[in-house]
Amino acid sequence: MVGAGQLARMTAAAAVGLGIRFRVLAEAADDSAAQVCADAPVGDYRSADDLLAFAAGCDVVTFDHEHVPQRALEALEDAGHTVFPSRAALRLTQDKLAMRRRLVELGVPVPWFEPVASQAEVEDIADRTDWPVVLKAVSGGYDGRGVWVCRSYAEVAAVLAHGVPLLAEEFVPFERELAVLIARSPSGHGAVYPVVQTIQRDGICHEVLAPAPGLADYVAVDAMRLGLRLARDLDVVGLLAVELFETQAGLLVNELAMRPHNSGHWTIEGARTSQFEQHLRAVLNLPLGAPTLTAPCVAMANVLGADDPDLHGKLNHVQAADPAVRVQLYGKPVRPGRKVGHVTALGDNMAKARDRATRAARYLATGSEEP
Amino acid sequence: MVGAGQLARMTAAAAVGLGIRFRVLAEAADDSAAQVCADAPVGDYRSADDLLAFAAGCDVVTFDHEHVPQRALEALEDAGHTVFPSRAALRLTQDKLAMRRRLVELGVPVPWFEPVASQAEVEDIADRTDWPVVLKAVSGGYDGRGVWVCRSYAEVAAVLAHGVPLLAEEFVPFERELAVLIARSPSGHGAVYPVVQTIQRDGICHEVLAPAPGLADYVAVDAMRLGLRLARDLDVVGLLAVELFETQAGLLVNELAMRPHNSGHWTIEGARTSQFEQHLRAVLNLPLGAPTLTAPCVAMANVLGADDPDLHGKLNHVQAADPAVRVQLYGKPVRPGRKVGHVTALGDNMAKARDRATRAARYLATGSEEP
Repeated sequence: MVGAGQLARMTAAAAVGLGIRFRVLAEAADDSAAQVCADAPVGDYRSADDLLAFAAGCDVVTFDHEHVPQRALEALEDAGHTVFPSRAALRLTQDKLAMRRRLVELGVPVPWFEPVASQAEVEDIADRTDWPVVLKAVSGGYDGRGVWVCRSYAEVAAVLAHGVPLLAEEFVPFERELAVLIARSPSGHGAVYPVVQTIQRDGICHEVLAPAPGLADYVAVDAMRLGLRLARDLDVVGLLAVELFETQAGLLVNELAMRPHNSGHWTIEGARTSQFEQHLRAVLNLPLGAPTLTAPCVAMANVLGADDPDLHGKLNHVQAADPAVRVQLYGKPVRPGRKVGHVTALGDNMAKARDRATRAARYLATGSEEP
Repeated sequence: MVGAGQLARMTAAAAVGLGIRFRVLAEAADDSAAQVCADAPVGDYRSADDLLAFAAGCDVVTFDHEHVPQRALEALEDAGHTVFPSRAALRLTQDKLAMRRRLVELGVPVPWFEPVASQAEVEDIADRTDWPVVLKAVSGGYDGRGVWVCRSYAEVAAVLAHGVPLLAEEFVPFERELAVLIARSPSGHGAVYPVVQTIQRDGICHEVLAPAPGLADYVAVDAMRLGLRLARDLDVVGLLAVELFETQAGLLVNELAMRPHNSGHWTIEGARTSQFEQHLRAVLNLPLGAPTLTAPCVAMANVLGADDPDLHGKLNHVQAADPAVRVQLYGKPVRPGRKVGHVTALGDNMAKARDRATRAARYLATGSEEP
């Protein structure tokens, strides 16, 4: 797995039971996954040479992020390495414009969008659609970075000043955000997890509720079908996370990711097969595992770093207060707003599970019981 | 953790979520746990020097086996290292005679036993109690090694010829074997898992059923109380596994282990907190996690090596046949009779869960559906 962040870290834990050898390409020797992986060379994921050296002896190469350049992926594929997801599939997660155009070709509903390069073009859009106008970097953004909700000409000018390729998108007045997670193996088998609700603030995922509370069956089935169809049509091997807007007019696809995803962290304890094991099973062409829930209600809350750098002192309190809450820490230095862990709570009642998970996550972050 | 077998391997996976740094002392660079652990120096667990070098920088030292000599443990404790379980507690798992004497002192029912050194002494016992007579090595045995069920003078002579200190024990006509697993932290907090039934052949665990089917509540409560009391009275920190005989006259203690134990492998998926995480939480003096079941019935079956060295080819079949079955492979070369993995199945019906687990384990071992 190229990349050694928390996604690779949790994938490393899932690799243990499968009895496979798992290697990560780290940026630094103390990266989150490098701390827990026996085979964690340091190298530059942008360098074809480093990637080729890393891939030597691997049966398959996969990724914990979408930032490996196309030419480096091409070097891997040209050298005969099995790369899942493929370079062609990954391109769609690296180029938001290409992804949206492909989705339109496939007849998949997406928010209205248009590439923009000048103040005049954005102003023209604002005149037609009214404020706010959403601007997105065509490539490189994640966790809210590279997404700007602009409410004035001045804000647009500030974004344009970054000098990166942009697209403009309509601001969707969604009811809520959903996500669906699919695994697909090279042989074409697919498995889909129950549709979840995600609660985001400033573009950063704060909570995930599985299954999405009160979701109409026909909407859930629509989302699952859409996910399976996209995995097939985009020829994804491994995981595909589809972030969705639920609107009064139906579902719109917001973003795609082809890797383990924050919206699937709940599966470690909340599903029979975790997304991390499922990703490995998919890219290794092993049969996929059952994606079924292990409890009626599962709530996940991210631990977002605050001022206190010490998580372990607070872990004690959280574990004592709720012996059944499940904490995953990522081994990352705490920085404000950074994802440094998550908490999962399972139960029969979503409000209670959500309260337990958010309470524990908040205490881990801030050392306070107060919201 | 001193030792890098499968117990350390599964503990390493549990350490990932706790966000701690986990180091194992391996006998060889390719040991089961060394394959999956970022920090796995090679050294001799019998050498005080190697142990002291290994322990440097560790907050606490614990064990995946009971074979570290007392003088080496003493060197660790004398150097100021925190060792859990302590040398004094571990001694009871290293000396079956001392353990039995301590249990008798505590008023705990055990099979009748007596140290023996000569053919004449064993013959005298056989004359009094009739055959078979069970002989056990006072130290060093596990997985059926060091235990001999003798049915004749000739068999006794063959055992005595090993030249190791022995004890004789009555052959207990038990109804079945049970086990209870307790975690205890330095602060004295305890947590106890549901009582399980273990199915052993030739002294090797083949299956574990959790909870023990049809166990009378009062017997379960007795076993759990006994386990908690033993953990306290023997001053165990970490896990204590108590192997029990269920007889018509009540429960007898057969063996003790102070580490993660085969009778607790089902807890990875079958309990809210796995025994491996629980052991870490206990020795780190973190609050203990909920030991509750995640499903009404959990069945675990060991994969015991057969002739075919390739597990991975068969994994494909097993996962395809039952997407919900959980397989753990240990990364160990297959040798006949060796524990190389285990399978866990969860469900509402024990007979079905057991059938799924044993069927998958058998296929992984032999490549055959036939018992």
